[in-house]
Order: sequence, then C-alpha cells, then structure tokens
Amino acid sequence: MMQLGFALLTIGSVRAKSAKSVALKNIMDAAFGGVGYFFFGWAFAYGDKLDADGNSINNAFIGTNNFAMSTTEESKYNTFLFQYVFAISTATIVSGAVAERVKFIAYALYAFFLTAWVYPVLTHWVWTTSGWASPTRLASLGPLFIGSGVYDTVGSGAVHMMGGVAGLAGAWVAGPRRGRFDANGKPVTMPGHNAVLYMSGVLLLWFGFYGFNPGTMGQLIAADGTSFSGVVARCAISTTMGGCFGGTVGIIVQLIYSKLCHGQAIWDLTAAGNCALTGMIVITSGCATLEPWAAALGGVVGGLIVLPSSLFVSHVLKIDDPVDAFVVHGIGGAAGVIWYALMAHKEFVTELYGAAPDGGQRHWGWWQGDYPNVLGANVIWCLVIFGWTFAMMAPFFYVLKLCGLLRISPEEEELGADISKHGGSAYPGMENMYNEHEASVKNGSTFAKMGNGHTDSHADKISSLEAELTALTNRVNKMSPA
Amino acid sequence: MMQLGFALLTIGSVRAKSAKSVALKNIMDAAFGGVGYFFFGWAFAYGDKLDADGNSINNAFIGTNNFAMSTTEESKYNTFLFQYVFAISTATIVSGAVAERVKFIAYALYAFFLTAWVYPVLTHWVWTTSGWASPTRLASLGPLFIGSGVYDTVGSGAVHMMGGVAGLAGAWVAGPRRGRFDANGKPVTMPGHNAVLYMSGVLLLWFGFYGFNPGTMGQLIAADGTSFSGVVARCAISTTMGGCFGGTVGIIVQLIYSKLCHGQAIWDLTAAGNCALTGMIVITSGCATLEPWAAALGGVVGGLIVLPSSLFVSHVLKIDDPVDAFVVHGIGGAAGVIWYALMAHKEFVTELYGAAPDGGQRHWGWWQGDYPNVLGANVIWCLVIFGWTFAMMAPFFYVLKLCGLLRISPEEEELGADISKHGGSAYPGMENMYNEHEASVKNGSTFAKMGNGHTDSHADKISSLEAELTALTNRVNKMSPA
Amino acid sequence: MMQLGFALLTIGSVRAKSAKSVALKNIMDAAFGGVGYFFFGWAFAYGDKLDADGNSINNAFIGTNNFAMSTTEESKYNTFLFQYVFAISTATIVSGAVAERVKFIAYALYAFFLTAWVYPVLTHWVWTTSGWASPTRLASLGPLFIGSGVYDTVGSGAVHMMGGVAGLAGAWVAGPRRGRFDANGKPVTMPGHNAVLYMSGVLLLWFGFYGFNPGTMGQLIAADGTSFSGVVARCAISTTMGGCFGGTVGIIVQLIYSKLCHGQAIWDLTAAGNCALTGMIVITSGCATLEPWAAALGGVVGGLIVLPSSLFVSHVLKIDDPVDAFVVHGIGGAAGVIWYALMAHKEFVTELYGAAPDGGQRHWGWWQGDYPNVLGANVIWCLVIFGWTFAMMAPFFYVLKLCGLLRISPEEEELGADISKHGGSAYPGMENMYNEHEASVKNGSTFAKMGNGHTDSHADKISSLEAELTALTNRVNKMSPA
Repeated sequence: MMQLGFALLTIGSVRAKSAKSVALKNIMDAAFGGVGYFFFGWAFAYGDKLDADGNSINNAFIGTNNFAMSTTEESKYNTFLFQYVFAISTATIVSGAVAERVKFIAYALYAFFLTAWVYPVLTHWVWTTSGWASPTRLASLGPLFIGSGVYDTVGSGAVHMMGGVAGLAGAWVAGPRRGRFDANGKPVTMPGHNAVLYMSGVLLLWFGFYGFNPGTMGQLIAADGTSFSGVVARCAISTTMGGCFGGTVGIIVQLIYSKLCHGQAIWDLTAAGNCALTGMIVITSGCATLEPWAAALGGVVGGLIVLPSSLFVSHVLKIDDPVDAFVVHGIGGAAGVIWYALMAHKEFVTELYGAAPDGGQRHWGWWQGDYPNVLGANVIWCLVIFGWTFAMMAPFFYVLKLCGLLRISPEEEELGADISKHGGSAYPGMENMYNEHEASVKNGSTFAKMGNGHTDSHADKISSLEAELTALTNRVNKMSPA
Repeated sequence: MMQLGFALLTIGSVRAKSAKSVALKNIMDAAFGGVGYFFFGWAFAYGDKLDADGNSINNAFIGTNNFAMSTTEESKYNTFLFQYVFAISTATIVSGAVAERVKFIAYALYAFFLTAWVYPVLTHWVWTTSGWASPTRLASLGPLFIGSGVYDTVGSGAVHMMGGVAGLAGAWVAGPRRGRFDANGKPVTMPGHNAVLYMSGVLLLWFGFYGFNPGTMGQLIAADGTSFSGVVARCAISTTMGGCFGGTVGIIVQLIYSKLCHGQAIWDLTAAGNCALTGMIVITSGCATLEPWAAALGGVVGGLIVLPSSLFVSHVLKIDDPVDAFVVHGIGGAAGVIWYALMAHKEFVTELYGAAPDGGQRHWGWWQGDYPNVLGANVIWCLVIFGWTFAMMAPFFYVLKLCGLLRISPEEEELGADISKHGGSAYPGMENMYNEHEASVKNGSTFAKMGNGHTDSHADKISSLEAELTALTNRVNKMSPA
Repeated sequence: MMQLGFALLTIGSVRAKSAKSVALKNIMDAAFGGVGYFFFGWAFAYGDKLDADGNSINNAFIGTNNFAMSTTEESKYNTFLFQYVFAISTATIVSGAVAERVKFIAYALYAFFLTAWVYPVLTHWVWTTSGWASPTRLASLGPLFIGSGVYDTVGSGAVHMMGGVAGLAGAWVAGPRRGRFDANGKPVTMPGHNAVLYMSGVLLLWFGFYGFNPGTMGQLIAADGTSFSGVVARCAISTTMGGCFGGTVGIIVQLIYSKLCHGQAIWDLTAAGNCALTGMIVITSGCATLEPWAAALGGVVGGLIVLPSSLFVSHVLKIDDPVDAFVVHGIGGAAGVIWYALMAHKEFVTELYGAAPDGGQRHWGWWQGDYPNVLGANVIWCLVIFGWTFAMMAPFFYVLKLCGLLRISPEEEELGADISKHGGSAYPGMENMYNEHEASVKNGSTFAKMGNGHTDSHADKISSLEAELTALTNRVNKMSPA
C-alpha cells in the first residue's frame, strides 16, 4: 500500500515522459527487494543465534545465520513481513531522489544492495537483542550504548533517514537532470505532470502510516504475548497530529514565502503534502511515547523544516532531488530521532520498554529532565546513519557510474526513459503534447508561463503565415486590383 | 482512505482546471480538520465530566472540558480517531458541493468551523451519555427524548445528512459556477473531466464504508469490553447489500429515464456510483440492526431517490452542486435515519443497546410494530440536523461573502483556480487542450458534441489559409503563368 | 479493494475510448454480483441442511436452501462476505478478457449468471462438507474423491482458474477487437492508454492478495474458534514470495525475449506486473501449506509461464484477451492447483486440516513422498473446472451472440463504447487526441512509432503552406520587386 503511495507521489512529481519508468521501478523494488531481503537481508538483520540460556552468541554488528529463511520460526514471520515492507520502503525513497535519469539496471542493483545489506545491518545494530546500539541489548553482551541505547522505535532513523541519505548519495553521484540548473547554476523548476497522482500518493502514504506506526507497534507488542491497546491508539493519535499540524504549518509557511519572495500568495499542494508527511516522520520514533500535544508540536517542527531544507538542497548543495526525498525522509527522519530524545514521556517509555536490560532505569525526554544519555545516543545515531549509509551508497553509485551503468544517455533522457527503455510512453497518444509543452517551457514563452504549453508553435506559425499572406495579397492587389 | 475516495470522486467530477485545487482541499481538510477537532471539537463533543457516581455533571447541549485533549484517557483515543475521521468527512462532503468557485481561505475557515463547532455539538446531542437526544442518556439527567432517544447509530444523520446540508448551504450562498445555468435559468451540463478518477473514488468509498460502518461498530463494542462479532458481520452485510442494490436500481432508473426523456438509453456511470453510495448511506444508521433483506430494500430506496432529488436540486432549486453532495449525503442521510425507525429489528436493537437507561425497553422499527416513539424522535432529528446545520452554515458563508472571502473572481474562475491560486495547472501541458474543449463546448460546435474539443481552431485557420493561398496563386497565375 | 485493483489494471490496459465503459463495469459487477450471489449463489454454494447429528442431508452437487439468505446464521456472515468478494472477482476477471467490444447488457447478464450459478456450484463441490470433491466431505456421505479430496485452499482453481476460463470462453465467442489481427491473422499490438493506472492496479491487487490469502485463512480459522496465527503469517509470507519471485523472473524473461526476438532489450512493465500476479496465484492454493522456499519457487514458475502462454493465446489460438486474463488467472490458477499437490508440506497440511473425515491421514505434496492421491485429485479438478466453466459459459455467450446482445456494432466499436453507450468519453476534451493517435498508429506513420500521435497532420500542412507561400512570394518578387 505504501508502495503505491510512494509510486503515485513520485509519478505525479516527475515529467510524463518518465512516468512508466517510475511505475515499473515501484513494482520492481517490491520484487527485487523481496528477493534480496529473503536471501540475505533477513539473515544479516535478525539471524541471531541464542544459546540455551537465551543469551545471544552472535555479535553486535551483524546477524550470521538463517539465510533464505532457512531456520525461521513461524512466530517470526510477522516480523519478517514488516521488515520486508520497511526494506522496500527505503529502496522506494531512493527511487524518488534519482528519478528520470538513472538506468533501470542501476535501480535493480541498488535496490538489491540496499535491502540485502545496507538496511539490514543498520537494523541489526538498533532493533535486535545483540546490536551495539539497541536499548534491548542483552545484559550478558555488555553495557548499553552511553548507558541508554538508541531509541528509534519505528524507524524515523533506520528507515526514513536511511532512505533519505541513500537518495541524497544517489542524486549527488548521478548529477542533476538535464536542464535542472541553468548555465549560471540557478535551479530551474521542473514541475511534475500530474497533481492528482501526487495527492493520491500523499493520502495513501498518510493511510499507510497508520499501518506503519500503530501497526508495527501492535505487531511488536503482540509478539510479546501482551496487549497494550493503549500503545497502538497512542501511535495512531501521534500520527494524526503529526500529519495535521505538519500540513497546516507547511502550507502557511509556503504561503508567506511565496508572497514575500515571489509576490504572489500560493496555496501550494506540494508544500502541504510534503509537510504533512514530514510531520508524520518527525513523530515516528516517538509515536508510542509522545503525548498528543508533543506529537502536534512535532508536526509543527516538520512543517517548519521542509522549505528551508529544500531551498538549501537545491540552491546551496545544487543537488537535484525531484521529490525532495532527502528533505522529507532524511532531515525529517533525523528530526524524529532527536524529537524522541527531547519529548518522550516517562510513563509511556516505561510502559513500552519495561526495565532496562541491566535492571536499571530507562531514559526519557529532555522536557521531563532525563535527557543527556538518550540525547547523546540518539544524536550519535543520526551521525552513524548518515555515515554508514553515505559510505556504502555513494561509492556504490560511483562504481556504477564508472561502469557506465548509472545514467541514461543525454539522448535517452531527452526522449524520456519510457520510450527509450520501456517500449513506449506511459500515455500513448499524449507524447507530442508533453514534448511541445516541455519545449515551450524551455523557451520561456509567455504561453508556457500561462500554463499553455501546447500548440503555441502552430499558433505562431499560423499567425505569421496569415501576416505574410495578407502582405502578399496586398502587393498583388496593387499590381492588379481584383 | 475515505478522504482519498472523496477526493478522487470530486476531482473526477469537476473540470480539469480545478483539479489541483480540489486535490489540495482534500489534503488540507484532513489537516485543518485535525487541528480544529483537536483543539475544540473533541471537547465540545465528548468533553463530559462525570461525578464519582458516574453521573454526568455536564449539560445536555455541549461538552465543556478537555480542550486540546488535555485530560483524555488513552481508552478514548480510538473514539477520538473515529470521530476525527467523521469530522473531516463532513468537511470533505461540503468541498464537493462548493467545488470550482470558492476561495481556498473560505475553505480553510469553514473546515475549521465545521470540525471545531457545528459537527461536534451535534454529536454531543446524540452520541454521549449526557446529550438531550441520546438513547444512552443517563437516567439521572432526565427522561429520554420522546421516551426513546434518537437512533443514529453510525451517523446517517449526524455525519452524512449534516455534511450534505452544510454543502447545500454553501452551494446556495456561493451561487452556481459561471455558465452552469443559461440565460433562461436552464441547467447546462458540466461533465467532470475524468471518469476513471470518479470510479476510483466510488470504489474507495465503498471499501471505506467497511471501515466506517462495521469498523465503527467494532470499535464501539470493543470499548465495552465485550465482543459481538455478529454485530460487525451484520454491518458488513448491510453495507454490501445497500451498495449492490442501490447501484443496480440506480443504473436501471437512469437507463429508463434517459430512454424516455432523452431518447437514448445510457448506462450511466455517475448514476451507478452515486446510487451505490446512497444505498450504503441509507443503511448506515441501521447497519447493525437491519436484517439482510431490509438492508437490500434500503439500497433499493437509495437507488430510487437519487435521480428525482438531483433533478429537483438542479431544475427547481437551481442550485449548482457539482457532485450531488446534498442529494447523496443529505437526502440519503435523512432517508437512513428514517429507515432505522422503519426497519430496525427488535432482537438486534436489544443485543446492541441492552436495556434503556431508565430500565424500560428499547424501541425498534415500524415493521415489528413498535414505531411511534422512535419514528417521532428520528423524524424530529432530521429536522434538527437541517435546522442546526443550515442556521450555522448559511450565515457563516454569507459573512464570508460579505467580506469578499467566499468566491473567486469571474476572471479567476474562467482561468481556473489552479492557475490563479495554486501556482499552475494540475496537468502541466494539457491546459490548452482543456481550455479549447471548454470553449468548443460553450460554442456548441459539432466538434464538441462529438467530443472533439481540440485543434479545431487550428484546423479551421489552416483550411482558410489554404483556400486564400490557392485563390492568390490562381490570380498570380493569371497575371503571369508559371 | 481488489475490485479497484482489477478496474485500474484493465482500464490502463485498454484504449482511452473504452475507459469509462470498463470503469462502469467494475462498479456494476460489485453490484450485480452482490444481487446474484445474495438471491441464488449463496444458496447453491452453501445452502446445506444438516440433520440433528450434524450430517448433511444435502447432496454432493448443489446446495438447495437458504435463498436470499433467508435462514443464514450470523456466524456465517463472514463467509458470505468473503465468498461474495470471490464471486465478483471471477466476474471482474472476465470483464478484462472481453473488454472494448461487448455490450453492457451482455456484461450484466453474464455477471449475474456467473455469480448466481457457475461459480457457486463449483465452490459447493470443493469447499463444503457435502461436496463430492471436498477434502472435508462428511464421512457419512461416502469416501473422499480418489481417497483424498481436492485441495484448493483459497481458490487458485475455483476462483482464478474459473474466472480465467470463463474469460477465455467470452473472448473466443465474442471474437477479437477490430484491428487486433491483420489481414494475415498476425496479431497487432494494441497498447493500453495509461501505464500508471495499470501499475496502480497491480499494486492494489498485490495488497489485495494479503486480504485474499491470509485474510481468508484467518477468517476460516477464526470460524473454527481456534487461532493459528502461524497459518495466517505463512500465507502472508507465501504471497510475498510468490509476487517477488514472479515479478523478478518475469521481467528477466521478457528482457531476454525482447532482446533475442526483437533486437531491443525492454524492461517491460506489463511483464513485471502480470508475472508478479501470476506468481501470487500459483501459491494461492498452497498459501498456508508451503514453506517459504517452495512459495518462492512457485513464484518462479509463475514468472516463467506467462510469456509462452501469452504468445500461445495470441499467436496460435488467435484469441484477443486484452489483459491476458486467461494466461494470468486461468493458466496461473491451474499451476497453483498442481503446485499444492507437488509442494504442500506434511506438517502444515496436518495442522490446517486435522485428520481426514474418515479418520485416515491427509495427503501432502510430491516432494515429501505422498502424492499420487492428491496429485490425481487436483489434476482432475483442473479438468473439471475447465470443463464445467467452458461448458456453461461458451454456450451462454453464444446464445447472447445469437440474440444480438453480445457485441457492439463495428461503428460503435470504432467510436468507442464510452461515447456510443455511456453518454460521452471518460476524458472529455481528450477524445480527438486519442483518435488521431489511433489513426496514426493504424497508418503506421513514423511519427506514431516515435510515439507522436498528435498534430502531425497540422505540422505537415503548415510546412507545405510555408513552402507554397515562399514560392509564390518569389514569383511575385520577380514580377514586381518589393
């Protein structure tokens, strides 16, 4: 479901000539990602061996058994499914950031690499009982990281930030789409071709977050054999508040910005949608441990950070990220990891996690006074995610580039990946219309600015023919009056 | 999810030039509505105080505490979420009725007003243990309304009729879209621009009704600590029957009407979709208390009332309601409130509600012989919903109109709200095509009737140029044979 | 939900001029199918009478009571709902196979016939305690079929294969769309008009399979009063593996085929989507009884069979099946019935079914050594499904044809069913563009091959006008220099 949401959001945000390529990518990362996670990812992440006393005899860095689910107990199947969905979500986030210019083979390779290696290792660190950063790390394996462990409950960091950073690496190595920056390096807007698809994507993702956040908690808790329906309800409330306040603040920020800096107040759909999503990502780590007002405030944070971050990426870093994947997921995810450390509520943390593995107390947020350990752990966790992901993905993309496997040729890009690689346009019969529109946008004609991308070339030519014909007729009239 | 359904249905039903504006509205009422319901609506609706004996010390008309969820217990979080979804649904229903001509700021303001005040107060009356119309009103607060209380189980009245009436008020005050009625006041058809989106909306809403009706019952029941899976299953059956029979009857009614009155038998998509939805709305109040055949019959009622009601609104009231929101939700909702009073089954009512608060018996439907109280209560409830909603919303919209905040200017309407207010068309590159289509529809050209809105102006000009050039060439030939 | 998935998949796969007709069909089979299943289907399928000892006093071939749900207990409502969804799924599968050329009245009639008679009888045979093929057939009614009974757990056969075969019958009797085969009988590609809709359909169906497979098992098991969450989780894993491996293998097969046979390597969206679906259908019968690796292998099988089957249908049988419904559902479904008999795991079969009704053992798959009975039963089941469905549906469609109720006229087909039968195009304003595109595809112009269907005629005329005008101007210049 979230896959469809991401797909529609991305398709709506790219140009029509790449729609089919994005559509295919979003089917295939569900498929490739499943293959990768089945064979390797699940083992690297959760392939822990426990000895007879229940102590892990695995290491803190990586799981080492259970490849191809060879010895997975049925009671772990639910975890596999949720983790599979998370894994392919990270691959999908990247697909938005590198859209419209990357070869399909590159896409297939990185989706496999991401779901089989980069994402699983990260989750081993933080979500298993042997990971070095895990707050549930067995006491027998040593003390908790900074006496606290990292709290990243449903993956603001391990899923969203990780996907966003991988997307940044891809977008940076691949370089911008042709024409995204003008000769002076100034960004040129490349609007998506279908706002309805974009909106459908946002609403599906919103709906999907209720599966992602409360659903994950429900599954985690059910696995414990206990039932805290309060925890699940709290996640749902947090998600709602994050989205509502994120979207509301985001559209107002954009309204003010467009009025002040461009002279016209725009109620912007993309701002509303991206900020609602960012608001939900900011409360993801703390979805089960925030009070409603703290989740609402997290949404406000989400609504505030998107615009400046987006301008920073496009105007300062000069990186072309067609769907702002790094801003929404990367920066929003980092904010979520921090937001937990600032706002998690004492009682809820205790209810959710119980006593710490060493018998000591858990750590909650700054506003309740117990923050240095968890804030330290979570800030370092953000740096670790950035470091690990970038260190893995940037060289990976670079090697693809060296092998000529990363980027489609300029001619193919001009024509669009759909026609050059996927057997034809997503919308047979509409290609010419879209091509003329693009040409007219490039020429900056008044027509284009008015939103009339189509047939201006014909209109111009017809007008000029009419004028010439009139002039010629006048001359002929003078020579020999009719 | 229902949000997406409403969004796609409405977008499909309006012209392309307003698609983005509708898309944005449907994201934003989830956001604005959440903000309004969080701060105020929840408190006005469910902010009851109970004394130590469990008796309400609140009043029959409005809740007065728990603003911003300040003291909400976690066990009530599920109720909050369902009510939040209901609240934004009412706002969304209105957005369909006023589509294509209302300023975004007006939309933001009424969405807030509706979710923060109009809807919550209504639900306090009927769904809390202190409301004057509630069938679960505590005995300590006085007798039940007409010795029965109002039975509006999942909101045929409080959600659907309320939203439909608010939409009627908005559509009436805002006036019709330009060109919706000709100089003689005769309605001019303005077909939507995308039937696929419309269908997707209908099917998503159909799916959503399974969350709305059985889901709500499941949640209500779960909150009681008991489990009547029979009740939930009955709701699902009722919903299915309502939709199936509503759609089937509706398409046949329209087929006969189009044959008799327009001479051509049309299998009409909108008739099928709207009637299926209306059928489901008719059984909403009784979803847990109708036998399958009574739900099927309710669907038939839904299928029968849509066409005459729609003709009445457009031809007699001369109100422009682009998605027939008042017909489907308003009239369908009223029919649903009545349908309960006619058809609710004795045993199911007792199973669902238990004994009445005063220890007396519950009331069931006319066909089982115990109707005067509940029929009286439910008919009056319909009048109350109409009166309260219209009295709140019509003046509200009128004030917005006086302040110049309600309606976009004629120029902006001609251009479309998307370009004038939202930074560009929903479908960049396709604007000109849609504009030419609209112009040709206005001119009533043969081309337009054939559905060929595009490029006729170019074709005409090219033909005339060819003719002129041929004529001129002939003259030149005469002067000086080549 | 699956209804919407099928709808979008089919709409995306047909030409724009039939989009509304397909959209309507997909709303109406939910409605007509509900009416048919309510009045008759449910009774023919599950209308068993049990005597006081719990022995069926019904027959092995058809249920005979409980029409219009007259005596259905509430505990059976869930079964009704799942069966209703299955029934309309079979009708929807057919609608894809006969798309773009069949009258709406034919559609209404066969949807009713299928859901009221053909499908229910088949399910009586295999899924009730009295059916002759059922593995849960009461011992009092006689021995199990081939000492085993047919294992078709969630309907690879009874739902998917049945729908696919009915579609084949319809496509065969109706004949191909005009222009689908050229004068020499060679197939002409008729690409769908919207790849994004196709992809959305595939992902919705993928999501829907989680309701279809694990959801059905969960419901079956819950009805037993026991809870095997392991069974549900296994279904979800099987579904995931089937889809992932099916899609992955399918896209690679198509890539190699397009490179070898057409000289250009195409990453094909339709191949990926259809093969992912086929993979899931192959594991449907065994979804609760396959190990993860066996489900993955089933997906591989699904990915391998689609392309050769599709070429066989279009090039050898010369049947026009616009969405490959027979290949995906019919052949994929048959493969699924066989796959159970080859791969079902001993322990899982025992867990799911318990002891056989005669007290004997259950039968599991070939790879664990106990196959002759179940393989025999399941192979014969495939033949029975083909025989029953084809024998019912082909004559039914043939009678419709004789009565002139089956096929729209050539003129209507040329114009598109939407305009001729449904009051206008699905996309008002875009008809001309699509028409020109189709014309240019027919003419095989270079423009069309490049994907430029639009305005080439104008461009040509304008160029020729320019040339003529220039020539004339030169002549006038010579006569009287300006």
